[in-house]
Amino acid sequence: MTASNITQQLIKSHLVSGSLDPGSEIGLRIDQTLTQDATGTLVMLELEAMELDHAKTDCSVQYVDHNLLQEDHKNPDDHLFLESAAKRFGLWFSRPGNGVSHPLHQERFGKPGATLLGSDSHTCAAGAIGMLAMGAGGLEVAMAIAGEPFYVKMPRIWNVRLEGELPDWVSAKDVILEMLRRHDVKGGVGWILEYSGDGLGGLSAMDRHVIANMGAELGATASVFPSDQVTREFLKSQGRQQDWQELRADSGASYDREETIDLSKLEPLIALPTSPGNVVPVCEVAGEPIYQAYVGSSANPGYRDFAVVAEIVKGQRVAQGVSLDVNPTSRQILQNLARDGHVLTLLQSGARLHQAGCNGCIGMGQAPATGRISLRTVPRNFAGRSGTREDAVHLCSPETAAVSALAGKITDPRDAHRPYPKIKEPSAPIIDTDQIAPPPSRSSATKPGLVKGPNIKSLPNSQPLPDRLAVKVLLAVGDNISTDEIMPAGARVLPFRSNIPRIAEFVYIDVDPTYVGRAKEHDGPHAIIGGANYGQGSSREHAAIAPQFLGLRLVIAESFARIHWQNLVNFGILPLTVENTREHIAADDDLVIESPAEQLRSGQQITIENTTRSTRLIGDHSLSSRQLEVLIAGGLIPWMRSR
Amino acid sequence: MTASNITQQLIKSHLVSGSLDPGSEIGLRIDQTLTQDATGTLVMLELEAMELDHAKTDCSVQYVDHNLLQEDHKNPDDHLFLESAAKRFGLWFSRPGNGVSHPLHQERFGKPGATLLGSDSHTCAAGAIGMLAMGAGGLEVAMAIAGEPFYVKMPRIWNVRLEGELPDWVSAKDVILEMLRRHDVKGGVGWILEYSGDGLGGLSAMDRHVIANMGAELGATASVFPSDQVTREFLKSQGRQQDWQELRADSGASYDREETIDLSKLEPLIALPTSPGNVVPVCEVAGEPIYQAYVGSSANPGYRDFAVVAEIVKGQRVAQGVSLDVNPTSRQILQNLARDGHVLTLLQSGARLHQAGCNGCIGMGQAPATGRISLRTVPRNFAGRSGTREDAVHLCSPETAAVSALAGKITDPRDAHRPYPKIKEPSAPIIDTDQIAPPPSRSSATKPGLVKGPNIKSLPNSQPLPDRLAVKVLLAVGDNISTDEIMPAGARVLPFRSNIPRIAEFVYIDVDPTYVGRAKEHDGPHAIIGGANYGQGSSREHAAIAPQFLGLRLVIAESFARIHWQNLVNFGILPLTVENTREHIAADDDLVIESPAEQLRSGQQITIENTTRSTRLIGDHSLSSRQLEVLIAGGLIPWMRSR
Repeated sequence: MTASNITQQLIKSHLVSGSLDPGSEIGLRIDQTLTQDATGTLVMLELEAMELDHAKTDCSVQYVDHNLLQEDHKNPDDHLFLESAAKRFGLWFSRPGNGVSHPLHQERFGKPGATLLGSDSHTCAAGAIGMLAMGAGGLEVAMAIAGEPFYVKMPRIWNVRLEGELPDWVSAKDVILEMLRRHDVKGGVGWILEYSGDGLGGLSAMDRHVIANMGAELGATASVFPSDQVTREFLKSQGRQQDWQELRADSGASYDREETIDLSKLEPLIALPTSPGNVVPVCEVAGEPIYQAYVGSSANPGYRDFAVVAEIVKGQRVAQGVSLDVNPTSRQILQNLARDGHVLTLLQSGARLHQAGCNGCIGMGQAPATGRISLRTVPRNFAGRSGTREDAVHLCSPETAAVSALAGKITDPRDAHRPYPKIKEPSAPIIDTDQIAPPPSRSSATKPGLVKGPNIKSLPNSQPLPDRLAVKVLLAVGDNISTDEIMPAGARVLPFRSNIPRIAEFVYIDVDPTYVGRAKEHDGPHAIIGGANYGQGSSREHAAIAPQFLGLRLVIAESFARIHWQNLVNFGILPLTVENTREHIAADDDLVIESPAEQLRSGQQITIENTTRSTRLIGDHSLSSRQLEVLIAGGLIPWMRSR
Repeated sequence: MTASNITQQLIKSHLVSGSLDPGSEIGLRIDQTLTQDATGTLVMLELEAMELDHAKTDCSVQYVDHNLLQEDHKNPDDHLFLESAAKRFGLWFSRPGNGVSHPLHQERFGKPGATLLGSDSHTCAAGAIGMLAMGAGGLEVAMAIAGEPFYVKMPRIWNVRLEGELPDWVSAKDVILEMLRRHDVKGGVGWILEYSGDGLGGLSAMDRHVIANMGAELGATASVFPSDQVTREFLKSQGRQQDWQELRADSGASYDREETIDLSKLEPLIALPTSPGNVVPVCEVAGEPIYQAYVGSSANPGYRDFAVVAEIVKGQRVAQGVSLDVNPTSRQILQNLARDGHVLTLLQSGARLHQAGCNGCIGMGQAPATGRISLRTVPRNFAGRSGTREDAVHLCSPETAAVSALAGKITDPRDAHRPYPKIKEPSAPIIDTDQIAPPPSRSSATKPGLVKGPNIKSLPNSQPLPDRLAVKVLLAVGDNISTDEIMPAGARVLPFRSNIPRIAEFVYIDVDPTYVGRAKEHDGPHAIIGGANYGQGSSREHAAIAPQFLGLRLVIAESFARIHWQNLVNFGILPLTVENTREHIAADDDLVIESPAEQLRSGQQITIENTTRSTRLIGDHSLSSRQLEVLIAGGLIPWMRSR
């Protein structure tokens, strides 16, 4: 047996299918899942539709951290729904106010050597303690909760050696900003980053979380740290020493790529608007007046990240006109900050202390004023993500944010002319374990019901492929149709994320506002005809579920975008390709496919009769044998239910 | 000279015009003003239009406490605008995060014997320390800042004697709930409540604030407490002993009405949905499961009100499924709670700690789930005010909220079977004076400019009455038109509160969506014809300003609602009454009034020519001589500017 690096060890110990050749599909056993509230409501509705009895993972946790702004009934109704779903399906439930999923999960559940799948792109943060942790779509997480493997293309493995020691005023955030400076936001696509080197000794488990978390911004599949004495100390401090195991690369293990960062050479870095990859040294943009300094989020979640800000601002006042927004990561960290006097220090400096959660990091409050500079310790600065269309969000370390808040302008923290406050994570922190409710036992006889507010509706049932698929073409569209055109997002639509019948009213509304009405009137299965690259853009599942609710059973296009193609199959809509589609089929044509299941199983070509034109066409599909069965069953959910 | 009660003393010492006969109009000199951000942006635009050089009051303070949810650029842009306006016009500025205006004002600026006018209905809270404090419309506060008297009908004076001592588990909130139980929400209309009696000795200045604040819910013009040793201790604790003076009723002073409350006989009370006057003993509704316990707001703002909750929940956990929302009143109180360990206690119990401000009390977050019971220490529980349409908000004391949060159901706190934690306001509190920026000095040579985001526009100019008023009738409406029909509110409209050109797009939109377009096309002065009770409902000034922007100069109706009639005059729109208006004038008629200023000055009747029908009509007005001049000048703002 060859020497393995840590990533290979993690994959081998969870491999269900496939081999470790980069690019080939592997199936992985998933030990733990996390869902947050914004994506979790749909996951829970999917579990309901699958008729899942009890989560089959070692541990699945439902967090509430995104939609904490309760301006009307929808968010609090979602919270109650999620709480009831956690009880119903055997999940842990972290109540609103407990804090951000990623650091909480690392503190309470993270386990070196285990796999974690989460319906949030920053799930990768748990790689900080030697987990193989990945973000995925909601239905994939639902499948994992139901005990199914997670399928992913085997990534290549990239070793990043950290050497030396960080200088004063430079911290973990600057390490990941350095990676982004070097490789930009697509540099990690198709890779797992595996960190090593003697520089690790100076990085706490939460420092490593900072680096692993923003692996998402590099596009990496995952980031993996060894599990060492630092990891052991972290788990011990959380009262979970028993969950520790050592993880290190075998001697002689190899990688697909290697690089080194000399930590001692790093300086304070900052990502300019509007990309996390737009990184320059802070000193290059020093002097620009700021409106806001914002600390918190999963990208700087640790006790240290707040305590260092408190020590910097101690006895001083935030500059007039600057909003210092403190967004505590978790109730537990906030308790420790309160105990140690840092909360008082922050308040005295003029900080605005917000509730624990994601908050402004995902555009839920704390939006900056028009065109004014906001320095944030968050992971992303895409245009408008703050809530303000013309925003100017810069990403930086807590040190840079704090020093700049006092000065009222972007300031290199090394120019603060004061001793650097070196903060350690507390060795005996307050541990707050009771706030995350455990699931009822697997054996408990009575299953509690789901609590659904007026805006939460069960997923509509989908039907298996009929013996004869007769459809009318209700819409013919052009090339490069995006999922934003199929299923718009934004404030008018997103509130209905847990209500498919209601959100379906918006399908294709900006392309053809008559489509929904015609689909309802037609009251039978229908087809849509597309051009090239049908379904490009966002991975949102609603772009398949909602048209399916309206009766869509067949999409014929010249080519499909990969993720939407997968989503169509997952929700029982047959995607076929026909060259020059629109020469052969137009809106209002009637199409018939005889014995579609048999045809699908017997080869890659399907005969389509256009009864309006009395012509026959050949459609191609490239479905795997597993996908065929999913489609014939009516989608992943009925397929799961039938097993 | 006759013996005076405290209210009479306060009025006499500020009387500019009128006499103390109930019902007659009096003019009062205003010493202090407060504006909050939701109403303050328009006040600042009015000051800009008046070309005010510097506030003429002793002290005017602009607070930012309402619109703290920054979901896009509009609220933060407003904050920066208000900060710049405070500098421009010589106001103090309390930055976002400092907390709720009313308790902050009492702590930092309140002064026994002085008058306070505020553009917020709970301004009356400052009566707690012997001020004559009243809420008013924005333009009235703008006028007061500009040195004009405040005109109000002389109220009658009602003495409420508080005797005895509150039992354990009963606190100030129960005293004002008892007043609401006895007199309901209109019981105080036309009255000033003056509190006295030996029971006052047991009520701190912040306890008195609780009672004075919710005088607004009784409909009272103001609530007045004596300034005594308790007041002195309070001001001393805030480092402002020099601002104290004694205020008590002269011996032999009389009142228009007297009543007594025996404090020792009170029990915990609760106001059921959906009126603050719907009060019953807590024990009558005990046992109902709750979703939320919410503490904070100007109705229970004191250190004590949070510390008592902390002491009750200490070492225990909030019931599963209950959201305990802690909304600190001010940064200063939060600092004291942090220093004394109460913040840590609250967090450990499971509380959600929010930023200091009004928050959910005015529907900005913390909305409850559909149909679930929310116990709140706030002043109002009107249906839907929480943000949730089908809400069930109950008003109660912090004690009742805390004990119920632990039990998960409405609980009479006397049934908690534990010692009552008696909390005192701290005698040496942390005082946080630097966060409220003082105005620049009156003499400072250069005036800073106003900082306006893209959604903040100067008020349009209005013109004096022309020598000949020729108008086209663009709209004829029926009886009982409300200001909600003239100028709708709600989420689609309110964001444009500081942008008259934009908000004007919504004028009459639900009555006649063509009106705005036709008014713009007409491009000259126009008239509207109404029926009886024109302009009933909300007092919003936008219902006059926005149509004025569209060219409205004349409204002829059968009768007018009082406040809208006043607003029309204040913004230069001539209101005339004609019997059976709609028999004589219809849409599209052209009307002419020759020499309107002369006609107005010479009597109560105005000749209107209907040139379309070649008829003459007589319109009546009942404007005072002061109002005449305001109207002729084009409204209050040009009238002010011309002086």
